[in-house]
Amino acid sequence: MSTSEHPNADVRMRGFVEKVSVSEARTWLQSALEKLGSVGDEKVSLETVAGRVLAADVVSNVNVPEFERAMMDGFAVRATDIESASLRGPVSLEVVGESFPGKAFEGLVSAGKSVRAMTGSKLPEGADAVLPVEQTCAGSGEQVLAVNSISPGRNVGGVGEDIRAGEVVLRAGRVLRPQDVGVLSSIGVKQVSVVRRPRVRIVVTGDELLPAGSAPQADRIVDANGPMLAALVSRDGGEPIYPGIVPDDREAILAALKDDAEVVLVSGGTSVGQEDHVPSLLAEHGELAIHGVAMRPASPVGMGLMDGRLVFLLPGNPVACLCGYDFFAGAAIRSRGGRATDWPYRSVLSTLSAELKSPVGRLDYIRMLLEQGQAKPVPKSGASVLSSTTRADGFVVIPADCEGYQAGTEVELFLYD
Amino acid sequence: MSTSEHPNADVRMRGFVEKVSVSEARTWLQSALEKLGSVGDEKVSLETVAGRVLAADVVSNVNVPEFERAMMDGFAVRATDIESASLRGPVSLEVVGESFPGKAFEGLVSAGKSVRAMTGSKLPEGADAVLPVEQTCAGSGEQVLAVNSISPGRNVGGVGEDIRAGEVVLRAGRVLRPQDVGVLSSIGVKQVSVVRRPRVRIVVTGDELLPAGSAPQADRIVDANGPMLAALVSRDGGEPIYPGIVPDDREAILAALKDDAEVVLVSGGTSVGQEDHVPSLLAEHGELAIHGVAMRPASPVGMGLMDGRLVFLLPGNPVACLCGYDFFAGAAIRSRGGRATDWPYRSVLSTLSAELKSPVGRLDYIRMLLEQGQAKPVPKSGASVLSSTTRADGFVVIPADCEGYQAGTEVELFLYD
Repeated sequence: MSTSEHPNADVRMRGFVEKVSVSEARTWLQSALEKLGSVGDEKVSLETVAGRVLAADVVSNVNVPEFERAMMDGFAVRATDIESASLRGPVSLEVVGESFPGKAFEGLVSAGKSVRAMTGSKLPEGADAVLPVEQTCAGSGEQVLAVNSISPGRNVGGVGEDIRAGEVVLRAGRVLRPQDVGVLSSIGVKQVSVVRRPRVRIVVTGDELLPAGSAPQADRIVDANGPMLAALVSRDGGEPIYPGIVPDDREAILAALKDDAEVVLVSGGTSVGQEDHVPSLLAEHGELAIHGVAMRPASPVGMGLMDGRLVFLLPGNPVACLCGYDFFAGAAIRSRGGRATDWPYRSVLSTLSAELKSPVGRLDYIRMLLEQGQAKPVPKSGASVLSSTTRADGFVVIPADCEGYQAGTEVELFLYD
Repeated sequence: MSTSEHPNADVRMRGFVEKVSVSEARTWLQSALEKLGSVGDEKVSLETVAGRVLAADVVSNVNVPEFERAMMDGFAVRATDIESASLRGPVSLEVVGESFPGKAFEGLVSAGKSVRAMTGSKLPEGADAVLPVEQTCAGSGEQVLAVNSISPGRNVGGVGEDIRAGEVVLRAGRVLRPQDVGVLSSIGVKQVSVVRRPRVRIVVTGDELLPAGSAPQADRIVDANGPMLAALVSRDGGEPIYPGIVPDDREAILAALKDDAEVVLVSGGTSVGQEDHVPSLLAEHGELAIHGVAMRPASPVGMGLMDGRLVFLLPGNPVACLCGYDFFAGAAIRSRGGRATDWPYRSVLSTLSAELKSPVGRLDYIRMLLEQGQAKPVPKSGASVLSSTTRADGFVVIPADCEGYQAGTEVELFLYD
């Protein structure tokens, strides 16, 4: 390809005419996400539902349990029969049977009678309390001696003690916990309606790239962004679609942009150089809403829409790619999947061991080491040095309106893991 | 089954003779885990390796990149040629070619020459810097005018700038982040040696239980613990093996205890009632090291070893099952899988809105609601009420040596999600 094919190549190499702020870009994105809402729902079986997002309120059709049950090992009794029982004046009851979990005593506990009852067994009819075995002594023959009185209802789990029929058990939007899965099982649910995972097409271009699994060569590097983005998408609840590197030509890229997906992440060819086809493709075939953001790294980041798909233009430099993903694309994938847009990183307060400078008007994302509560910038940390993000413990964000922080300042450090 | 089959049924229904403290139980477990170490390794492909635990240090065999590259769009130059260049006195250079990513300029940049170079392209031989396009003007014909001088090495990424051959890139024990996957790809790794997921056999017994997916019945409840435990095991990096409910007889349970697994979780039949086969089975066929712990819920919890498998006896009551899992089994699964034993719950400080009482000598695990920074106990929170853990935002632990906390105390609240 010669320069003559790009009459305005020099102009297009000049860089961004103007950049929008991170908060302007986020405002556009937020408004697009509100219009789009979450993707559709799907039914998922109980075994794989933990961590998924509930699509609708779950109402129980049943009581849990459906029966009164013994909450201790002991004797099912009528409390009135043993009102006077004490160690000095035990009351003798006839033991007329046994109630096991899943194998209930079918008869009646009438006056002066009792039934040996195991934890979890159905309380026999007529009984209204379970006297713990520790409050009994063996009597003669089929007798048991109650050595304590008991209140009605004691050690008995009532019908619907855990969950009542008609109750909303879990609300739409809930990210399901392990115990939620247990509760869903207990009310007889087999399949759960959850928000589908957004399909995320990863489009990596660049003639300098070799596919993952290759050995690096004399003038080529191996694709790092594709595998990294796929892992990020999975982390954020999306379903990555990554068939491999896309040739750096307009038709191949356009076809990939139109793939069956809710979100498209493009890495490479997204800036303003003469080889950067993606911005013009998006502008021609959809909407290039944002291109160029006042941040470092990731300033060439862009975003827009094509046929209802959110398209993110991410830089080819892998640190910038990660940063651009985390500031914009990750939040979009979580949102379309019904999740909160908050960062998936927890943060700690730490003290800066060195000054951090940042020009006013630009947001900076700085990889940091955390050593004994002290945070310091990672050495060797250019946008192309992905290992800076593996050596780092996390990162600090310096907002656009801030010139940086003095050494000794307490800052919020976001931890990568 | 009649009582006569269990001559000492009454004795065995009497409860635990003595309970050990949570810290004693943990000490035993820690020592068992140190002896066992982590389970073996396996090779996993790059696409599925995020979140797994690295089994061995990864050393790079290559430099990333293997070549000097342009870090900006511009012109590859010899810095000495344009030492005097300025806006008022531009220096003219002949443009002898172009270097694209993956399509390098093969010739030499000799004195007075330059090559148009795109970001990521190989720096042509002879050149030692990249003059950004913004610092040039178009000259006549194949000339470019440098309007600024530049230092040698400027805008050039060196060989091994990201990673040097021979460098340890990631250490054994690392839980792999998305960007780690990118780095592994960039050094040409296809398959990664990671700690295998511990196989965890889930053994749920109880004649009162119906399998997950059933509707509850008049005297039976649906298994909640099996699906919950499977989700917990997955969360903690284990591979759950849960073929369904095990009949409540000694042979079936023994066979399940001897299944091909590194960890066995038994729920139900684990206490000291006459139907509780598991403790005696473990004592006969292995080691029942701990049975009965001074905590609430989960006091019937037990643990031991059988043929090198860690066996955990978890209560059938689902809240107690969850609590016993989280205090002991979860840590064991994480440890055997090469992970830190720390709780997977983040914690926040919150203020108690009501007094919490707890007897000295017993650790209490209390499900809490968090409302505007105020923590209060969940109402309706018996050990059998699993919905207390879904209604709760998290839990507070009252250590054994503490009588509880006054209202207004600031406590650490562990969040379930």
